Amino acid sequence: MSAILTLATIQQARARIAGYVRHTPLLPAPSLRGDMPAQLRLKLENLQVTGSFKARGVFNTLLQLNTEERARGVVTASGGNHGAALAYGAWRLGIPATIFLTAHASADRVARVTMWGAQVRQHGQVWDDAHAAATEYAQTAGATYVHPFDADRTVVGQGTLGLELLEDVPAIDCVLVAIGGGGLIAGMALAMKETRPGIRIIGVEPVGSAAMRYALERGQVAPLPEVRTIADTLAPRAVSERTLSLTQRYVDEIVTVSDAQMVSAMRWLWAECNQLVEPAGAAVIAAIQSGAANISNHTHPVALICGGNAAVEPVLTAYANS
Amino acid sequence: MSAILTLATIQQARARIAGYVRHTPLLPAPSLRGDMPAQLRLKLENLQVTGSFKARGVFNTLLQLNTEERARGVVTASGGNHGAALAYGAWRLGIPATIFLTAHASADRVARVTMWGAQVRQHGQVWDDAHAAATEYAQTAGATYVHPFDADRTVVGQGTLGLELLEDVPAIDCVLVAIGGGGLIAGMALAMKETRPGIRIIGVEPVGSAAMRYALERGQVAPLPEVRTIADTLAPRAVSERTLSLTQRYVDEIVTVSDAQMVSAMRWLWAECNQLVEPAGAAVIAAIQSGAANISNHTHPVALICGGNAAVEPVLTAYANS
Repeated sequence: MSAILTLATIQQARARIAGYVRHTPLLPAPSLRGDMPAQLRLKLENLQVTGSFKARGVFNTLLQLNTEERARGVVTASGGNHGAALAYGAWRLGIPATIFLTAHASADRVARVTMWGAQVRQHGQVWDDAHAAATEYAQTAGATYVHPFDADRTVVGQGTLGLELLEDVPAIDCVLVAIGGGGLIAGMALAMKETRPGIRIIGVEPVGSAAMRYALERGQVAPLPEVRTIADTLAPRAVSERTLSLTQRYVDEIVTVSDAQMVSAMRWLWAECNQLVEPAGAAVIAAIQSGAANISNHTHPVALICGGNAAVEPVLTAYANS
Repeated sequence: MSAILTLATIQQARARIAGYVRHTPLLPAPSLRGDMPAQLRLKLENLQVTGSFKARGVFNTLLQLNTEERARGVVTASGGNHGAALAYGAWRLGIPATIFLTAHASADRVARVTMWGAQVRQHGQVWDDAHAAATEYAQTAGATYVHPFDADRTVVGQGTLGLELLEDVPAIDCVLVAIGGGGLIAGMALAMKETRPGIRIIGVEPVGSAAMRYALERGQVAPLPEVRTIADTLAPRAVSERTLSLTQRYVDEIVTVSDAQMVSAMRWLWAECNQLVEPAGAAVIAAIQSGAANISNHTHPVALICGGNAAVEPVLTAYANS
């Protein structure tokens, strides 16, 4: 394992990015109807700058680029949230940025990137297609590719969320985390287990894009035959050696949820907490509601609401026209 | 002034309702673009149970009803948020509830009430029409009318939000609060000024339903000739003697905002903080953005995001069908 994937580097990253990201709120969330565990708390990382945890890995990466690297610019491929975070981070630090999204990325995903002046290119059907095009572009243009999950600095940056949770809930004994490429759960699990090995870490994947479970079952990274989910930010075809390795070492359990269960969970988050989130952000709630994850034995469980960039433009337009 | 409109009763109310409402989060909100005062913080009362501050006054009222009053049930007229809060509070305490809304109340406003089993009746064009019908119903049915703003227990309950803010931000020196009937600002201003007289309290009204400013200019409560705003929860035709009196005594300044400014502020809250709120919840942001309220001389200003019940069903339906 890389020498920088350590608790110490995550602590350093937390200090590095502190002026650029938010310490997001924790919400005690005994459900109004009593239909969820009374002791559950929600970590509202959807309130992070640009609407997801991705800003953490982005700033940890960008702030370590040298002057020459900054001048040459950065590039990535993204389901949407990492692209938005990189576009914002680059804008804030004065770095040119190019973001590759899939051909069918929604208008709101594109808008979250272009609002910060980044170039958008849309390519391919799934994230892996956009990634291939972005990698080629990076080599041609001499730009730095900022990987959304398979890079030490990214994983270390996301790990700062684990340290923040340990501070928010000192007695935390369980955390549920959604998995796309696995960068978030890898960093968080590293930070939390190296601090307190007894904490149970539960990963949650869409049943239609369960790339981590697929890799764990095979003991190696392997591309899914098909990716099919509304959780567009949890939909790479494969995880990476880096995130698989950390998951094997630190994550206790992986569960899966359906698209319909994520939509039900989105409705619950809106009705109970007035938080409108994207499907990925509701996946952990879906895991509890569906019974896929059983947290009844835990006294201080936390569900990480990882991202909130839902497509709300129709609502705002309706108010503007009313 | 009533003997129960005191700091001491607000402190008692806070203890009374503690098991029924949330201590809502405070978000440091230096804007991403630098287009808002860097020291501004947002009190996210849209995360309160049922999506607005109204649950505070409701529980403070319901928990003081005796067994016989509970059995006879409760009734109110509401722009939507007080009705939702009363429906939930009544459901939780096993009290029958009837909620009068205006004839044109939106489907989401009705749904937020019926989901808790309350009876809904729709009547009239503005809140005052629904209020007249509800008052008559209360007398006929022998039910307790729980007024959304013109009642001591309601004002005292909303005042608990002032105490919570003093605890959240001990150095708070300015707070912006939206005004509908004035119950919230009356209670908060009482709690905060009686604790620390130097805190500046700024009220914000829609320009098309500025009933408090209208009353202040005349030195007495008077009905507006016309009410016209998209902020349906800030739209009574008149404030009350009680809320006017407390506002005269404790509030420093009233400013107004347009519907378009509230929609712009809704967009800002979504882009910056991923909080989708109703127009009323964004009014305080609109006041700062428009320059109507100048908070540049304050070191610890707080904008109170008072409610978040926007009409989001189209977004949730779109995800369900995607």
